[in-house]
Amino acid sequence: MRPEPPRNADTVAEVGEFGLIRRVTAGRTQPPTTLLGPGDDAAVVAAPDGRVVVSTDVLVEGVHFRLDWSSPEQVGRKAAAVNLADVAAMGALPTALLIGLACPPDTPSAVVEGITAGLWQEAAVAGAGVVGGDMVSSATLVISVTALGDMNGYEPITRSGAQVGDVVAVCGRLGWAAGGLAVLGRGFRSPVAVVGAQRNPEPPYAAGPQAAAAGATAMIDVSDGLLADLGHIAEESGIGIDIRTELLEVHPRLLDVASALGADARHWVLTGGEDHALAATFPEPAAVPDGWRTIGTVRHGGGVTVDGRGYEKPPGWEHWR
Amino acid sequence: MRPEPPRNADTVAEVGEFGLIRRVTAGRTQPPTTLLGPGDDAAVVAAPDGRVVVSTDVLVEGVHFRLDWSSPEQVGRKAAAVNLADVAAMGALPTALLIGLACPPDTPSAVVEGITAGLWQEAAVAGAGVVGGDMVSSATLVISVTALGDMNGYEPITRSGAQVGDVVAVCGRLGWAAGGLAVLGRGFRSPVAVVGAQRNPEPPYAAGPQAAAAGATAMIDVSDGLLADLGHIAEESGIGIDIRTELLEVHPRLLDVASALGADARHWVLTGGEDHALAATFPEPAAVPDGWRTIGTVRHGGGVTVDGRGYEKPPGWEHWR
Repeated sequence: MRPEPPRNADTVAEVGEFGLIRRVTAGRTQPPTTLLGPGDDAAVVAAPDGRVVVSTDVLVEGVHFRLDWSSPEQVGRKAAAVNLADVAAMGALPTALLIGLACPPDTPSAVVEGITAGLWQEAAVAGAGVVGGDMVSSATLVISVTALGDMNGYEPITRSGAQVGDVVAVCGRLGWAAGGLAVLGRGFRSPVAVVGAQRNPEPPYAAGPQAAAAGATAMIDVSDGLLADLGHIAEESGIGIDIRTELLEVHPRLLDVASALGADARHWVLTGGEDHALAATFPEPAAVPDGWRTIGTVRHGGGVTVDGRGYEKPPGWEHWR
Repeated sequence: MRPEPPRNADTVAEVGEFGLIRRVTAGRTQPPTTLLGPGDDAAVVAAPDGRVVVSTDVLVEGVHFRLDWSSPEQVGRKAAAVNLADVAAMGALPTALLIGLACPPDTPSAVVEGITAGLWQEAAVAGAGVVGGDMVSSATLVISVTALGDMNGYEPITRSGAQVGDVVAVCGRLGWAAGGLAVLGRGFRSPVAVVGAQRNPEPPYAAGPQAAAAGATAMIDVSDGLLADLGHIAEESGIGIDIRTELLEVHPRLLDVASALGADARHWVLTGGEDHALAATFPEPAAVPDGWRTIGTVRHGGGVTVDGRGYEKPPGWEHWR
């Protein structure tokens, strides 16, 4: 008989579907909103508001993440963060995550366990539980995450409510993930604070419900880039937005990295995606909550301008193009 | 300039992410439970019970479906059905679906449009809306579906509540999908009623809330096979279940097909998955609702027996094994 291989060398095929489910759910603690967790046909999650906010995202190895750039835990955290940020961007309190995981049979079980551990960690940061999922065989590693949230009595903050005269504000990091990607793309691994931003977005989850309570008129998660995502608010609200560069905070560390790479840190701030900051419009300057930074105003017309002019570089990106 | 190709020849790369989202959402009608549909950071769905039931499943081309056996619409309907059945198996009324779709850039747009049309069709059968999703690039076609439901004031029916003395009943088809798979596996395309069952499961969605209202003590969606899935109820409830073959309905058409293929129709009924019937336990014979068929009883001990004996053929299957 062959000796049993060390646990880290097990593949998902060797551990099996049910064994893997046991491994990734054992010993986890659920928040009070998880009324029935994994293990039945479906989960049951508290929705005390009487409305549930829900969003889904799909991440594909080689497209959205690379396991030679990020650990499985980092991939799991990022997969959770992108969804939880979408829920927070409606003004909701995140309550639950579900994970769909498709991977090749020879995937090390440790990879799946790491991804799942990362999901649990990020869910805990946002106050949510991991309540269910599905694990199947596939030639490509694909992670699908669905996040739920509760409005806690506030109205959902859509992209369509911005009014002329509103102030535009952001909460969370801008340009860091783009800077980190530029560093990694040149084969460097430091500075770790910038590289880490690309691997581990830190969406300001609590700022979503904070903005809803403060009377935000429109809100969006900055996933494709500030100009691209504010463009969605402009289009859906039928207004224009002007960003003032003197209000844009460009962190000294980003300036340093950009200088070393011959890149433009302000371009990262205006167009870099994946930091999952929140951008919102508020009816007056006094309504902007603590921790948010005012960056511009809502004006008549359409589109997004920078200091009153069109921005010359291509904003955001689309899949498949 | 090249003439624009006919719409059906467009690939997803040519149509682009946002163009595709427009195509698959245009002209759709949402049920009243959809408070905010696709197009924002997240959707908002009514959860009047104050609890939301949620389940996710992942389907992979070549593993869970084949586009040479099923049309894109049939694949979409099936992807929706497996999830909606999980929600119904808790006793909930399905309210909403979200779809995550990962596919190669050269996938014809018509395939994605067909899958999405199928999802909408099946959601409508169950009374649900398609409220959101994500579409990304991947080497493998992967469909991830999440379904939500509302308990309407009833308690969720888990797998763990069966009591000794309860009666076991089923609603919906058993063995049909297994028969259809056997037919397709031999290269035949008929009889269409049996082949169609493999392509288009018809879960009895309304039977889930019906069972909850009737006081069902445990319930499960028959996705892996009757014996395997009743085994989950037996294990979670700490009881045993005995199936009586004289109570098992084997449809004459299944008997005909099995005879022609030299197969055992009763084996399909006992072990065939993918029909997504519902199986439940009820406290007394009088509690079994109209449309449900009593097939056995809950007894002391553990496991599932057939006429008091262990069943000799392997029940169900696991992924990756």
